[in-house]
Amino acid sequence: MEPLRNLSIPTLEEIKKAAERIAPFAHKTPVMTCQALNKMADAEIFFKCENLQKVGAFKFRGATNAVFSLSDEDATKGVCTHSSGNHAQALALAAMNRGIKSYIIMPDNAPKVKINGVKGYGGEVILCKPTLQARETATAKIQKETGALFIHPFDDLRIIAGQGTAALELFEKVQNLDIIMAPVGGGGLLSGTALTTHYINPCTQVIAAEPKAADDAYRSFKSGKFVPSEDPVTIADGLLTSTGKITLPIIQEYVDDIMTVTEANIVTSMRHTWERMKIIIEPSSAVPFGAILENRDRFKGKRIGIIISGGNVDLDQLPWLL
Amino acid sequence: MEPLRNLSIPTLEEIKKAAERIAPFAHKTPVMTCQALNKMADAEIFFKCENLQKVGAFKFRGATNAVFSLSDEDATKGVCTHSSGNHAQALALAAMNRGIKSYIIMPDNAPKVKINGVKGYGGEVILCKPTLQARETATAKIQKETGALFIHPFDDLRIIAGQGTAALELFEKVQNLDIIMAPVGGGGLLSGTALTTHYINPCTQVIAAEPKAADDAYRSFKSGKFVPSEDPVTIADGLLTSTGKITLPIIQEYVDDIMTVTEANIVTSMRHTWERMKIIIEPSSAVPFGAILENRDRFKGKRIGIIISGGNVDLDQLPWLL
Repeated sequence: MEPLRNLSIPTLEEIKKAAERIAPFAHKTPVMTCQALNKMADAEIFFKCENLQKVGAFKFRGATNAVFSLSDEDATKGVCTHSSGNHAQALALAAMNRGIKSYIIMPDNAPKVKINGVKGYGGEVILCKPTLQARETATAKIQKETGALFIHPFDDLRIIAGQGTAALELFEKVQNLDIIMAPVGGGGLLSGTALTTHYINPCTQVIAAEPKAADDAYRSFKSGKFVPSEDPVTIADGLLTSTGKITLPIIQEYVDDIMTVTEANIVTSMRHTWERMKIIIEPSSAVPFGAILENRDRFKGKRIGIIISGGNVDLDQLPWLL
Repeated sequence: MEPLRNLSIPTLEEIKKAAERIAPFAHKTPVMTCQALNKMADAEIFFKCENLQKVGAFKFRGATNAVFSLSDEDATKGVCTHSSGNHAQALALAAMNRGIKSYIIMPDNAPKVKINGVKGYGGEVILCKPTLQARETATAKIQKETGALFIHPFDDLRIIAGQGTAALELFEKVQNLDIIMAPVGGGGLLSGTALTTHYINPCTQVIAAEPKAADDAYRSFKSGKFVPSEDPVTIADGLLTSTGKITLPIIQEYVDDIMTVTEANIVTSMRHTWERMKIIIEPSSAVPFGAILENRDRFKGKRIGIIISGGNVDLDQLPWLL
């Protein structure tokens, strides 16, 4: 793992600049509280609702910051990425807002609703076989043909700065948090959240939550060495990815702990949130509250901020009905 | 039907007083917008999200206003009602907030989750056979034994004034609405909404929406004569009731139109709202947007406010999975 001292990381200025850049396009999402969930947790929880963000996920922050950071000259060539998740739609919409093209490489087994989602935001979808090699070949081909700039889903300083704006907004609304929590997949949201917290509220602990069934970030964090994510099977389909070359060192330095959560507790947490808060969150977003339910003593009496990462769920496939 | 001139109706002062009374207890719920739904409707819609209200429904406004309108002397005896719906939980929580007892008469076939919901808010549940006579006998018995004051779910001036505060908050946030919409069951929400609109924005049209399969309010409105609701079968289980002796005359006078919506369009509207807005709304709340989808020409290009009435749904029984 590359030591952090050799990497540049987003500064507070860059995160604040990202907030300005995305302001005309992104929702300032609400911070919600729920007495019923507070009672279950015996804690006071503030939910920063990025499920209510454009495209239904925090990903729109990073993608918008990246797209609007480009020089006019670079921007004219368009942007590209590979993703079958929320980053794909986020980048497509960000590009549409800037009036430039986006090329999204997606596996040909991606759900049709996701492919149509990207197209609905004006993205040009390039399908390829669902293998790493096919994806890289397709991406290289598009870049060569179009000159489009590749925007990585998380291992990119502009993306990380953009994701850090969610915590910035949370801190504007809520003071004196003991703990701030986010789920961790590739680590874009987590590293942005950790940096913002470090700059603004250094006394607030940063605790990440990860499915036990996809605990590569946990193992990387605990061992100090990069551990890849290998074919994990978890309901939290936004958290399958390994951490990145930029995100992991930031996490090592600025995150206080990573906790793992069972599948059963992820489902329970998701259902409680739907039932009591009346908001739709995706399984990945339920992981932090699941960690609280699984470790009540640790969180008892604390003031906790949770970044709810997204709300994109297949309503025909609810986990408690499977 | 009793002519309106013989009835007193809540004044603007009373609605404003209700807003003050409930302010320490009720959420000022957010007003949300959604580009995807606007595009579907070819209109600009502002959703006043009472699904995010305490107990998950607008009913908490009216119940709180009623309970906190009582003199100390009356209040000590407690309050009672019969309801298996949102009013039951709303009244129980309002009473708990005032520190008085609530007696809730419920049919013995009510779902256990609803009975437990009332108990969770400190209500004393009295079960009776699911017949009108059993309900009235049980209610009379409780009133005689305890002196508790009966709080009707909708046909009560304090309840109507309380429900009118949702529109009041909507108008604080959004100006120049062409139309304001609410679903209609007993008519508490609709009559409160219509009165507030009449006082504050008399140029805004008030349009109610009702399931075609439970169209008693529509038929009462169109015929000018009270038509009872008789064993309706609709997925919108909050809209089964007939209108009241107070609510119907207000509706006749201050509502511009009532539109009916098919079951299929209620389900479609509900699903679109879940999918694109990421909020959980109950079927009853989906009826106004369903009316828009069913009558696009009428609503095209308009600025429309919709009161989302509630979000209490059995997550094991989603209508698109039945």
